[in-house]
Amino acid sequence: MPVGTQATVKGLTIDQVRATGAHMILGNTYHLALRPGHETVRKLGGLHGMTGWDGPILTDSGGFQIFSLDAINDISEEAATFRSHLDGAVIRLTPEHSIEIQESLGSDVAMVLDHVVALPAERDLVQDAMERSIRWAGRCLNAATREDQAKFAIVQGGLDVELRTQCARELASMDFQGYAVGGLSVGEAPSEMYRITAATCPELPEDKPRYLMGVGRPIDLLESVARGIDLFDCVMPTRNGRNGLAFTDGGSLKFKNAIHREDNRPIDETCPCLACKHSRGYLRHLFNAKEMLGPILLSIHNLTYYQTIMQGARAAIERGEFDAYLAEKKRGWGEVASA
Amino acid sequence: MPVGTQATVKGLTIDQVRATGAHMILGNTYHLALRPGHETVRKLGGLHGMTGWDGPILTDSGGFQIFSLDAINDISEEAATFRSHLDGAVIRLTPEHSIEIQESLGSDVAMVLDHVVALPAERDLVQDAMERSIRWAGRCLNAATREDQAKFAIVQGGLDVELRTQCARELASMDFQGYAVGGLSVGEAPSEMYRITAATCPELPEDKPRYLMGVGRPIDLLESVARGIDLFDCVMPTRNGRNGLAFTDGGSLKFKNAIHREDNRPIDETCPCLACKHSRGYLRHLFNAKEMLGPILLSIHNLTYYQTIMQGARAAIERGEFDAYLAEKKRGWGEVASA
Ligand SMILES: [Zn+2]
Ligand SMILES: [Zn+2]
Repeated sequence: MPVGTQATVKGLTIDQVRATGAHMILGNTYHLALRPGHETVRKLGGLHGMTGWDGPILTDSGGFQIFSLDAINDISEEAATFRSHLDGAVIRLTPEHSIEIQESLGSDVAMVLDHVVALPAERDLVQDAMERSIRWAGRCLNAATREDQAKFAIVQGGLDVELRTQCARELASMDFQGYAVGGLSVGEAPSEMYRITAATCPELPEDKPRYLMGVGRPIDLLESVARGIDLFDCVMPTRNGRNGLAFTDGGSLKFKNAIHREDNRPIDETCPCLACKHSRGYLRHLFNAKEMLGPILLSIHNLTYYQTIMQGARAAIERGEFDAYLAEKKRGWGEVASA
Repeated sequence: MPVGTQATVKGLTIDQVRATGAHMILGNTYHLALRPGHETVRKLGGLHGMTGWDGPILTDSGGFQIFSLDAINDISEEAATFRSHLDGAVIRLTPEHSIEIQESLGSDVAMVLDHVVALPAERDLVQDAMERSIRWAGRCLNAATREDQAKFAIVQGGLDVELRTQCARELASMDFQGYAVGGLSVGEAPSEMYRITAATCPELPEDKPRYLMGVGRPIDLLESVARGIDLFDCVMPTRNGRNGLAFTDGGSLKFKNAIHREDNRPIDETCPCLACKHSRGYLRHLFNAKEMLGPILLSIHNLTYYQTIMQGARAAIERGEFDAYLAEKKRGWGEVASA
């Protein structure tokens, strides 16, 4: 899922997002509740009406942002209290309020409010937050009034397999339409993330989607698919694209490097995206001249690349050849391009 | 013509430029010769190959930039000498060199190098520059080696009708494929610009295109069409779009104003552009949240609007109703929207 924090995938029109092959996009409850405000979003037709996106939209609960933006003031069983990064206003967010906001935003999938702890942390703290996250998940389910909006639970438990499996089992016994693995990709080693994902997925219902939040590099997506994940969101394709980095099967290309100056080749001859109708030399020129079109084209390419590797993964799984697919991609990515 | 100074219409993909209805785009010789360099452009397939634009491309001669960017060091009969705004390097530009650069850029229309003086100026100075511009125009014609590239001359002469008509007559006797009126829209009153345009056009060949450089507001385009102009280029649609201003038949709308916050209407219900599939409230949100998509969408709308009024003008001329068309548009623009 491309990330559209503020009701826009940065730099792309909705037609361009569609053309990357994306099926679903993500909006951030925290940002949208502060600006323009969820009531304003509702009056403007919800996220679908505002953006013109006719596919599914998922909204997060705001939990990750308020914990990770270092805005948190106080956390009690009742609510998380935090300060707005825009104007410093003190805001109190309960699980019920998070659901109410997401219902106003009109997303197709709402995430439960969870209690995220920064890692590493004491086991007691991680356990406490995990158990509160389960209780909050239940409150979110009770608070929901829209039957047309799916609710996804979020498994917490830090890097502790026992806590993760306990959390997954308890949430699996509740009536959610999907399950996320949260609180990862926050600085831990990839191997740690894979270990937790591998331990968590078997505890989740087989017939419901599994979503790894905020992940990641191309290799992280495929390694996580291998461990049972179906759905991802990540800012990397667009953020790296804005910074001049393009993902390819042969590693990444940095368009701030002068080596591309007179290179007539596209980023990737097999890529169907708009950026790949241009030469590397032109893309280099756009970044060198600080033209908006550089970030736009690389965002398009990277989103297309992520969709392409996921399509490749689905096809390989159907053929029963996922291991070979993963090995081939890893070989390519290991050979990091000289530029 | 949308302006693509650095081989990109700011913020738009080439598909989006095409969708605005534009037939021709403009590139700036001065900027492109400095970065990435015209030899690099040539190696990357010329401006057509780089940008992917398959319609005609016009390049200016560099004259206006070197005179207006205050970079001019010295001007002699042989050449203009100036400093690069990028690295301060001293560069000497002759009429022959300007044509050589434009041939490397591979544009379909090359403009002659002219001597532009800032207004107001002494008549002697204006006359001197005008006469030099005629001699330089001749040198450009002699220097040209590409038969597939049209050459347009530029009429100079400040705000002096006598000098303008003399210049136009002399250039009209030379073998150019088109004629531009240059050195206007540099701070003079619109009425002065219309007066000079009205005096110049009758001296130019009837069967060749007439191009008013760097103009202007929607009203300026139609007032100049009324005086015999066919072709324009201007950064206003894109520059104003990036700053949150949208042109409409009822005046301009400023999306930095909070009044649009919950407005469900599009900018213009009759406009076919992508921006007009969104609500004013969404556009307001994008500018408020400083999202790239705001400038992109308003640039698309404004370029579409300029093309639409020019299409309307052509249709009105064919029906023999241009005066009524101009009067109707002026009535609408006079009623500046409250926002
Ligand atoms: Zn591509
Ligand atoms: Zn429009």
